[in-house]
Amino acid sequence: MTRPVMIAGAQMGGIARNESRKQVVARLIALLRDAHARGAELVVFPELTLTTFFPRWWMEDQAEIDSFFETEMPSAATRPLFEAARELKVGFYLGYAELTTEAGATRHYNTAILVGRDGQIVGKYRKVHLPGHADHRPHMPYQHLEKRYFDVPTDGFGVWDFGAGKFGMAICNDRRWPETYRVMALKGAEVVMLGYNTPTHIPWEPIYDHLSAFHNHLVMQAAGYQNAMFVVGVAKAGKEENSYLLGGSCIAAPSGEIIALASTDGDEVILARCDLDLCQYNRKALFNFAEHRQVQHYGVITERRPA
Amino acid sequence: MTRPVMIAGAQMGGIARNESRKQVVARLIALLRDAHARGAELVVFPELTLTTFFPRWWMEDQAEIDSFFETEMPSAATRPLFEAARELKVGFYLGYAELTTEAGATRHYNTAILVGRDGQIVGKYRKVHLPGHADHRPHMPYQHLEKRYFDVPTDGFGVWDFGAGKFGMAICNDRRWPETYRVMALKGAEVVMLGYNTPTHIPWEPIYDHLSAFHNHLVMQAAGYQNAMFVVGVAKAGKEENSYLLGGSCIAAPSGEIIALASTDGDEVILARCDLDLCQYNRKALFNFAEHRQVQHYGVITERRPA
Repeated sequence: MTRPVMIAGAQMGGIARNESRKQVVARLIALLRDAHARGAELVVFPELTLTTFFPRWWMEDQAEIDSFFETEMPSAATRPLFEAARELKVGFYLGYAELTTEAGATRHYNTAILVGRDGQIVGKYRKVHLPGHADHRPHMPYQHLEKRYFDVPTDGFGVWDFGAGKFGMAICNDRRWPETYRVMALKGAEVVMLGYNTPTHIPWEPIYDHLSAFHNHLVMQAAGYQNAMFVVGVAKAGKEENSYLLGGSCIAAPSGEIIALASTDGDEVILARCDLDLCQYNRKALFNFAEHRQVQHYGVITERRPA
Repeated sequence: MTRPVMIAGAQMGGIARNESRKQVVARLIALLRDAHARGAELVVFPELTLTTFFPRWWMEDQAEIDSFFETEMPSAATRPLFEAARELKVGFYLGYAELTTEAGATRHYNTAILVGRDGQIVGKYRKVHLPGHADHRPHMPYQHLEKRYFDVPTDGFGVWDFGAGKFGMAICNDRRWPETYRVMALKGAEVVMLGYNTPTHIPWEPIYDHLSAFHNHLVMQAAGYQNAMFVVGVAKAGKEENSYLLGGSCIAAPSGEIIALASTDGDEVILARCDLDLCQYNRKALFNFAEHRQVQHYGVITERRPA
């Protein structure tokens, strides 16, 4: 252990539609304190952590939609979390819905931020791979309207310093796309943090429901191994309104092994001491990118969207 | 099952240095007949199937090195395999060392061919990701000199028709690089066939020896899932001269599940009926590339070799 960092994942149980930001932030602070008491330097919270997973509902009233979004960060409601982080000297990753204005145009993003141990925002990432659909499918028990409620960002994957390491951010469906991790690994990321909200029943593709936990871990374990990085995946889990969300929050090591794993579907802290020098060890041998990658043969990956 | 194809993997046990091509081809034909008797339409053999895995030895005499290479395909020694394939109407994938001349220059490739059910060569692939090293490391129990004995090809990954499906080829270390499968998926591949020779002890990176079987399956299962394809990985396995080679030949489905798996470290046929329409099912939903890929954010994958 020559470059260890204590990383926690703070899985959350369901958030009801009528639960207030204040109630949610109190839960976040309790998890932050729990993680800190166990030695965490950094806590990863889920995707869209401040409200229920609202893309499950078809809404037409823009004011109603926008009520799930944050127009400032920190806000009055979330400032206590930032203050607790500064007090405890614990950084965090937080996912939330971001409403902003760019060149006079309103934009909606599925966003995550990295906050340093001083309570200051270090980096921001907006979700690239928006899943689901934009059309109304009233025959289904619920919707998955991320393509309706969020914009694809013009900024992509970034990497930021945290302590002695390089940290990247992704969100939910990003984790199924190998390009996500590869882009960040090539930018030097040693840890990728990601939150997710994943229904265990996918109404338009039900034949793989029984494999949802397997798929969740498969993609993160493969990514850890193939990119010589740690992957910290954190769920909003359990019963939430009329859907059930996958748990299984985990930390995958550069070996591809899961070194920390949630065992409940509720609010729960998982934790691992991650030696970031392992990433560099792996990148000197089997995954020495400079020696082994053959970019001249990868062209279609960036040229072609469809098969 | 609307577009099934019966695919077999023909794992092979070790091949001694003094074993002749004729002896090896007799083993290949026995495996081909075994697979055919069980309904196989296509048989995948390992990497460098015709000789022992010679990159484990440092050699300086070019004639000795070249004795492991084929200058024609089929040759007198391998023609009986092609004739058996035509007789049985079974196609095959075969890995071998290829010695050829390009614009007056001698070239050495780690090659695989796809042979159709009429015994004719349909496609050829030359290994892109050559692992190991080019220098002599006499302190190690054996070498892994693919970077010394083989050239990186100018042609990359291709896809060929076989029956009603689209088939791609890869070789051994290619399977650890997610770009391998993605390039072929974008070209339409529904099946990727690959042979491998993987020592269970890697002298220059021993800390993951105990995970070699896990890593082998992890990368192929993730690839099957993330690319909505079947992956057929076939080993040369077991004791071979002074090294021990990983077995675990398998067929991974578009679900990421292993649907056929070798249980020995010797000559053994595995088989699965693969419905290629499953690939198209998956590509219409979660892995609809046209809807979900965001190539504008993938640029560094084809720009940057090193981290």
